[in-house]
Amino acid sequence: MKMIIHIFFTLSLVSSISFASVQDFCVADPKGPQSPSGYSCKNPDQVTENDFAFSGLAKAGNTSNIIKAAVTPAFAPAFAGINGLGVSIARLDLATGGVIPLHTHPGASEVLVVIQGTICAGFISSANKVYLKTLERGDSMVFPQGLLHFQLNSGKGPALAYVAFGSSSPGLQILSFALFANDLPSELVEATTFLSDAEVKKLKGVLGGTN
Amino acid sequence: MKMIIHIFFTLSLVSSISFASVQDFCVADPKGPQSPSGYSCKNPDQVTENDFAFSGLAKAGNTSNIIKAAVTPAFAPAFAGINGLGVSIARLDLATGGVIPLHTHPGASEVLVVIQGTICAGFISSANKVYLKTLERGDSMVFPQGLLHFQLNSGKGPALAYVAFGSSSPGLQILSFALFANDLPSELVEATTFLSDAEVKKLKGVLGGTN
Amino acid sequence: MKMIIHIFFTLSLVSSISFASVQDFCVADPKGPQSPSGYSCKNPDQVTENDFAFSGLAKAGNTSNIIKAAVTPAFAPAFAGINGLGVSIARLDLATGGVIPLHTHPGASEVLVVIQGTICAGFISSANKVYLKTLERGDSMVFPQGLLHFQLNSGKGPALAYVAFGSSSPGLQILSFALFANDLPSELVEATTFLSDAEVKKLKGVLGGTN
Amino acid sequence: MKMIIHIFFTLSLVSSISFASVQDFCVADPKGPQSPSGYSCKNPDQVTENDFAFSGLAKAGNTSNIIKAAVTPAFAPAFAGINGLGVSIARLDLATGGVIPLHTHPGASEVLVVIQGTICAGFISSANKVYLKTLERGDSMVFPQGLLHFQLNSGKGPALAYVAFGSSSPGLQILSFALFANDLPSELVEATTFLSDAEVKKLKGVLGGTN
Amino acid sequence: MKMIIHIFFTLSLVSSISFASVQDFCVADPKGPQSPSGYSCKNPDQVTENDFAFSGLAKAGNTSNIIKAAVTPAFAPAFAGINGLGVSIARLDLATGGVIPLHTHPGASEVLVVIQGTICAGFISSANKVYLKTLERGDSMVFPQGLLHFQLNSGKGPALAYVAFGSSSPGLQILSFALFANDLPSELVEATTFLSDAEVKKLKGVLGGTN
Amino acid sequence: MKMIIHIFFTLSLVSSISFASVQDFCVADPKGPQSPSGYSCKNPDQVTENDFAFSGLAKAGNTSNIIKAAVTPAFAPAFAGINGLGVSIARLDLATGGVIPLHTHPGASEVLVVIQGTICAGFISSANKVYLKTLERGDSMVFPQGLLHFQLNSGKGPALAYVAFGSSSPGLQILSFALFANDLPSELVEATTFLSDAEVKKLKGVLGGTN
Repeated sequence: MKMIIHIFFTLSLVSSISFASVQDFCVADPKGPQSPSGYSCKNPDQVTENDFAFSGLAKAGNTSNIIKAAVTPAFAPAFAGINGLGVSIARLDLATGGVIPLHTHPGASEVLVVIQGTICAGFISSANKVYLKTLERGDSMVFPQGLLHFQLNSGKGPALAYVAFGSSSPGLQILSFALFANDLPSELVEATTFLSDAEVKKLKGVLGGTN
Repeated sequence: MKMIIHIFFTLSLVSSISFASVQDFCVADPKGPQSPSGYSCKNPDQVTENDFAFSGLAKAGNTSNIIKAAVTPAFAPAFAGINGLGVSIARLDLATGGVIPLHTHPGASEVLVVIQGTICAGFISSANKVYLKTLERGDSMVFPQGLLHFQLNSGKGPALAYVAFGSSSPGLQILSFALFANDLPSELVEATTFLSDAEVKKLKGVLGGTN
Repeated sequence: MKMIIHIFFTLSLVSSISFASVQDFCVADPKGPQSPSGYSCKNPDQVTENDFAFSGLAKAGNTSNIIKAAVTPAFAPAFAGINGLGVSIARLDLATGGVIPLHTHPGASEVLVVIQGTICAGFISSANKVYLKTLERGDSMVFPQGLLHFQLNSGKGPALAYVAFGSSSPGLQILSFALFANDLPSELVEATTFLSDAEVKKLKGVLGGTN
Repeated sequence: MKMIIHIFFTLSLVSSISFASVQDFCVADPKGPQSPSGYSCKNPDQVTENDFAFSGLAKAGNTSNIIKAAVTPAFAPAFAGINGLGVSIARLDLATGGVIPLHTHPGASEVLVVIQGTICAGFISSANKVYLKTLERGDSMVFPQGLLHFQLNSGKGPALAYVAFGSSSPGLQILSFALFANDLPSELVEATTFLSDAEVKKLKGVLGGTN
Repeated sequence: MKMIIHIFFTLSLVSSISFASVQDFCVADPKGPQSPSGYSCKNPDQVTENDFAFSGLAKAGNTSNIIKAAVTPAFAPAFAGINGLGVSIARLDLATGGVIPLHTHPGASEVLVVIQGTICAGFISSANKVYLKTLERGDSMVFPQGLLHFQLNSGKGPALAYVAFGSSSPGLQILSFALFANDLPSELVEATTFLSDAEVKKLKGVLGGTN
Repeated sequence: MKMIIHIFFTLSLVSSISFASVQDFCVADPKGPQSPSGYSCKNPDQVTENDFAFSGLAKAGNTSNIIKAAVTPAFAPAFAGINGLGVSIARLDLATGGVIPLHTHPGASEVLVVIQGTICAGFISSANKVYLKTLERGDSMVFPQGLLHFQLNSGKGPALAYVAFGSSSPGLQILSFALFANDLPSELVEATTFLSDAEVKKLKGVLGGTN
């Protein structure tokens, strides 16, 4: 009898002092409006454990491409539960000779950990100083927010790494695609980089740019 | 001749428009004072590539302990370059039957990716709802900031995972150590958890607590 | 005449240089979508002084329950005007012998001030160190974000306290409800806490948990 | 032939590793709901270069008013692209003898740079200390967040300045309008400022206030 | 025997997986340098429970002054443990007829809860709209960051309230002291507020200002 | 007599309820340690109005260089008062034909306003889309954080612009200096940009790089 009373009181207590779950997480609802803080939140009643798990990093990315490498992100909305939580990860696959070309993440710093192979990684500071390391399995390296950096497979077989970001949406701007894979007029590329017209036009050709 | 002039002008330009590198990073100086934002910054002139790399995650943690598991963090000041950059990682080793007991990170959300083995992981929301998943190699899961969660080796061999945090200093509070591995008086533990006196005293004994 | 001109000019000035009020506040519209930053904003034209006031803390919470205590929050959407403003409060009522069991606030630090009675409060750090104080009327104590803490009426009559949080949605995870008031399988609770099967099943019975 | 293959691979690469552009910006959609973090984001496909540019600061504000001055902001939604980006600007025009009366920006610090004329500017700290400077063309001054400050044309001709804020929605509260240009009862103004009834009523008359 | 081993292993585990306590809190060291994020942190080994408690709010402030009111803050460094934790509180005492004059907190929003008496409180938005409420015991009200607000004892006896801020250092700028209790030249006060010379000089006289 | 009493009470009140000025600002002390949040704070007693003003933008930068342009920042510690306030500005001078080459600011978004001349400006998104505008006097444009952008004098005479950043230390990474003005080995530049060996070596020669 006493137990029954306890249960009765307790359940009402649990419900009365459990605050709304919105403060815990905001699972992305891709159909709702977005805001500067991220995607709209899915109705908490429809959130399941699957929203917090992601299997998209289990498979190697396709490295049959010009850079012999692939970046596979675990970001919202594909990884819905990560929305607004201030952290995300991605998988880097680098075939032999593969490279993640010079790029920046405008919205977050990055930490990399090597799972397989040997990776030569580096970043360049605002003072134009180069910080360069060769990383073996288990080694990690940090790339401060917004600075140009790269990862290059400097070993003999394929390489695999995971990278973590201090934001749910770190962004990714790959330098050569930003320069050559769009319609930015060649003369503007040249004037703002000092590259030669021939070089710019050649790379626009290779990377699918126009103008 | 023209080239020489160019070089002359450019170098002075580079130096005049490269802003001080303090804005790029703040490598931890463990001897300086700490602030709510982290460690003091090392003199930029003494920063090297080694400050941004960390080899402490390369070796498996020692799992010969009561939980058959180990957590190896890559945090400042050991990983000096990560100070203030809003991201960090750690390595989880779980021997067969190993478990990272229920714990919270007061300062950041966490994303886990399984590198080897099978991990059963879960977290509990403010609404006391349980989100539980069995994760295989390559699967990832997110644990929202400050919520109780655990990772348990549910496979047949050892398991390895990396976890990322959206803070340079996420913190780690392991529930049973917080409850039983200190001098918090047994009667207070009991009054604030509903656990029995016998249970509390038994676990204080196992985990080295007093009072 | 001069006055009339002044009024004319001024009113147009007031309207032209008063920026939209959206930057001042974002009163919660519970029917709109939520985002990681909180509730959608109500149309400013429909905001009244009542959105910024809340009478829900005036009445003592119901302490006729297992913990002889009650937590009454002043959070959005009930307290609509607080949405997005980075602060909130709650009222703690502790009958004689009452206790707010060990709990955490995943999203904010807390400051408590005792209004009536005597409260024994404490928190446990990541280093498993206990910080314990007995607080009398007018005394205050701070509990850092995400750390386990409790408040216990250690006086002879009822106790009342107000607590403040540095977030509009601090969250609340009560340890024993998180462990025992849901369907988290007993063997997982045991494996991740070291508690005995008998203890776990007993408390699941008391607190309404299953499995 | 090789080139064609390159292009094929590259374009698919570009699309596969370019993350969704939402992380770069969130151009204000004035028709969507607002959140504490700002306006909803316009569909990225409908964003054009015009969303990131603003011509509203090109024309001098109308200074034919009681303060002989005008503030022209470049804020969302008029300047849609600035939404959520944490920065904004405004234009100050001060005719001869013009003044931007004492005011605060609740949400951001401000930096001013003088383009034309001479401006006497100052702010008052929480410690009631006054920091006062006369600024000539090209001089700049910073006003810490939320503190009362003013700008006054202390030269012989018109003055022009641009001001920058560390927020997309800094807000603007002009002291005398806040006191006298609304229905705040005179006795409350008097009790909370120590101003005399005659003074309050006179200024309410001038500035259009009632009560 | 087994227990001894357990204890041995566990203690080493506890120490190896307890991260440095710096991430939990940063108790103010008033002798160290300050940074934009707050005071330097005291050596964690010297931190005690007394750093997290504060008895300064237990006693009523002295209301024998011109405003018949007192504000008693619980801020660092007096309340050392609150440093960097993003929350703080203060006590308001209002004798009969007492008033906390119009003021702003540049760094945080505020929530007030009435403990005793009747308080008429209000704030003014950037749009110059007034939000006014009469609050009884237990009522609470929120004042958005940086906006002018006041609290006035509108009851028959003394009033007491506690206020909470979403920052460890919210700041406090009291309008009439900012205007009249310093050396800001009268002609500048007049030009930037529209107040008359007589009024300004009278209040400078009352409040101790010069010039 | 009554007045004297008033002054006496008030002055003590002013001093008792004016909180320490540290919360208002943190003027940079270049000799103290730096933290992730910025420079240490100068002793408030030594702060003067000169700390909040800066005359370094009054003079045109020297544009007799390879880019016929100059960037003059108003940052700490030169502009000491701006430390930690979350905003900063800089001056851009572009001689006829001058260009601020492609660059990023890792730590902040930027807003530009044209003061004189005609500037062609653009940025490239993470999706490699180009946003390009020709700006006349008084026009403004926003460049989202961390994205590549440039400014080019497309008019007939010199151009002048001011730019604002939503951070006290936005950083500046100029692409071609990052690539070619240091010791990053040519083969790494080539592998991570697709540029030809000849082009890389030529530009390293022009810009002073080695290796």
